[in-house]
Amino acid sequence: MYEGLKGFRDFYAGEQSARREVTDALEDAAARYGFREVATPALERTAMYVDKSGEEIVDELYAFEDKGGRAVALTPELTPTVARMVVAKGQELSKPIKWVSTRPFWRYEQVQQGRFREFYQTNIDVFGSAAPEADAEVLAVAADALTDLGLTGDDFEFRVSHRDVLGGLVRALAADPDAVDTEAAIRAVDKRAKVDDGEYLGLLADAGLDRATAREFDDLITGVDDPADLDRVAAAGGADVAAAVENLRRVLAAADDFGAGEFCEISLTTARGLDYYTGVVFECFDSTGEVSRSVFGGGRYDDLIESFGGQPTPAVGVAPGHATLKLLCQRAGVWPDEELTTDYYVLSVGDTRATAAEIARDLRALDGVVVETDVSDRSFGAQLGYADSINAETVVVVGERDLANGEVTVKDMASGDETTAPVEAFPPESGRPTYEDYA
Amino acid sequence: MYEGLKGFRDFYAGEQSARREVTDALEDAAARYGFREVATPALERTAMYVDKSGEEIVDELYAFEDKGGRAVALTPELTPTVARMVVAKGQELSKPIKWVSTRPFWRYEQVQQGRFREFYQTNIDVFGSAAPEADAEVLAVAADALTDLGLTGDDFEFRVSHRDVLGGLVRALAADPDAVDTEAAIRAVDKRAKVDDGEYLGLLADAGLDRATAREFDDLITGVDDPADLDRVAAAGGADVAAAVENLRRVLAAADDFGAGEFCEISLTTARGLDYYTGVVFECFDSTGEVSRSVFGGGRYDDLIESFGGQPTPAVGVAPGHATLKLLCQRAGVWPDEELTTDYYVLSVGDTRATAAEIARDLRALDGVVVETDVSDRSFGAQLGYADSINAETVVVVGERDLANGEVTVKDMASGDETTAPVEAFPPESGRPTYEDYA
Repeated sequence: MYEGLKGFRDFYAGEQSARREVTDALEDAAARYGFREVATPALERTAMYVDKSGEEIVDELYAFEDKGGRAVALTPELTPTVARMVVAKGQELSKPIKWVSTRPFWRYEQVQQGRFREFYQTNIDVFGSAAPEADAEVLAVAADALTDLGLTGDDFEFRVSHRDVLGGLVRALAADPDAVDTEAAIRAVDKRAKVDDGEYLGLLADAGLDRATAREFDDLITGVDDPADLDRVAAAGGADVAAAVENLRRVLAAADDFGAGEFCEISLTTARGLDYYTGVVFECFDSTGEVSRSVFGGGRYDDLIESFGGQPTPAVGVAPGHATLKLLCQRAGVWPDEELTTDYYVLSVGDTRATAAEIARDLRALDGVVVETDVSDRSFGAQLGYADSINAETVVVVGERDLANGEVTVKDMASGDETTAPVEAFPPESGRPTYEDYA
Repeated sequence: MYEGLKGFRDFYAGEQSARREVTDALEDAAARYGFREVATPALERTAMYVDKSGEEIVDELYAFEDKGGRAVALTPELTPTVARMVVAKGQELSKPIKWVSTRPFWRYEQVQQGRFREFYQTNIDVFGSAAPEADAEVLAVAADALTDLGLTGDDFEFRVSHRDVLGGLVRALAADPDAVDTEAAIRAVDKRAKVDDGEYLGLLADAGLDRATAREFDDLITGVDDPADLDRVAAAGGADVAAAVENLRRVLAAADDFGAGEFCEISLTTARGLDYYTGVVFECFDSTGEVSRSVFGGGRYDDLIESFGGQPTPAVGVAPGHATLKLLCQRAGVWPDEELTTDYYVLSVGDTRATAAEIARDLRALDGVVVETDVSDRSFGAQLGYADSINAETVVVVGERDLANGEVTVKDMASGDETTAPVEAFPPESGRPTYEDYA
């Protein structure tokens, strides 16, 4: 007996049917907005990740040498791959480029609740628009997908921030703006909720902010509850901070127009960990706090395409991770039933296979109707037990005696009621006929 | 600028929309028959493949050592993984277990037309039924998927064979049945169409058949055109061959009842290369021969689950590969258009974003309607050009002057016709309204 690998999961049919519903909700929302599906490789050259993130990223990768001597890695995220694709065909594609895809990614990391070594994400990205409407559309798609799943404004919130507000403030407050490591300071903000106060201030000190300045910075970013509070932030920084504040306001206004405003709140303590983010960033959180981790996040990465050798191409995206989204859906009681559903089981007893098969085929020709029939040469009782195990709603019993009268027996599995119907009742005209249509 | 890896493909939006249609046809056909989706890991322990196929399989695998020192491999096929899953939960699952999934697999091999290092398959399997109806259902699902794609009986054929007929004949004809390597002889049959006559006879000789016996064997398996010819084959072998011939006949009779009979023909020169196949095997071929390779294949593997440490569990499956299926669809002229489709573009000029966004949201609430709007803050002309590039059928122009009259302009992109409609015309009641509904 073989075992699967730690952090890699087998999804059996019941659980997968729930996962499929959630994936469909995410992809359908994106499709309605005109995001187009792309499909991407599982392996890329390791250099693509090392060049962007440094040699230490290799420790988190499933990286190896292939039989041709190439250094390759299982993709840990989609963004570098789609950036590579935009660079390769950027000039041919009309802008904005709007892409969506769902697939697994891989990181060698500690397995814990909601975190696996093989994990699934739906990536939704817009390339080629710097306008606030692009950021807002990404927020709106994410909000539509979550509300389609049955989540409400009481369940989740998007905490929206701006990297240039944070970076600009750091430089404006520092005694020597050139001596401060802005990226490190932003990474410190990203860690703020996960470490204690002393460690947080230590990280800011490492970034070049003395204790008093760090306090001042922290007071500024924590003191913002609504758009009006942003005035104080804009006043504390230079022109770059004021411009970033204005951009943040425009994104929120567009999100309002696009129907996502009610889910957004300003949260300058949100920073996102990855260095390639540039402008607006956001994270989705469980409003009740029961799921304590960020459910997913996204933001702008305006410089990445150019750094990959392409034309300057602003970009913004979001990537709901399915494992944390499941935690949120379960907490809110909207995770779909992990059950099989079956419209019809066509039960064949005696020498009736040809007629049973014909009825099954006719029912399958109706839109979205799931029909099973006997493929195991089993008894009446065994077939009925199987029909029950797959939650068949209606069983059509095709027996020799009924058939001699041109009839079959139709059985409603919930109530146990049964009736006879002429064989010519199949195929029904259209729709998804149930027991009531024959009774 | 980074490059993708050889044999790994990026699928951009146009090509992917065609691939999605084909994947949906395969998965929808399986779903109608009650096959349930499962999802499976990309990595497994290398031992799972080596134990079944020998050390030489490693040359074809993307195999490496993970950071925990485990020998792991990118999955080259699904069957061992689902066998492992059946063993792990076999007793809990009601039989027959019917699973479907679409995903990539990986083999380090020479890249050629229709063959890549990362390739996609839809795997469809039944576990727990030895009855001929299970084999027939697998044939029927495959036939339904292909006809749903627009292929007909003039386009493709299933060449159906039986491993026990081949193996039984080899043993019956050999001077010393114990000295013959049945598996090697079956592999020789699998290579028959790919090598010249001398090499083929050489392979049979290596398996233990002298030249005269090999000729006799080949005459027997090539002389079968219809079911009646099977009598001669049954007579030439022992009781095991007669039983296998009877099983093959029953599978074909069930395939007839299940609607797949017209696509099936007996072909004892079909053998399938993998050693784990046991009973009926089949391959799908282009009837015109223009696509010369097998499009895909399948068959019984009744011993695999037990060899993985599970209860004896008969199994049968089919795995359409998407690359060769594309070659067949293109040859037959039914490969879907590789084009973007968009129902509406809502064009916003002047200070009309809020109204445009509301119209876009209302249209998106209709079932399956794809709606884009401006996220790039662009001019009328640039927006109209973009709407054309995404093949928008209808453009709703939301301008300040029209809006002052409570109206918008609706434009049919195919004809260039336009009309005005009251803003209250949105949302339309239901359906997928087109230009005609406003004109």
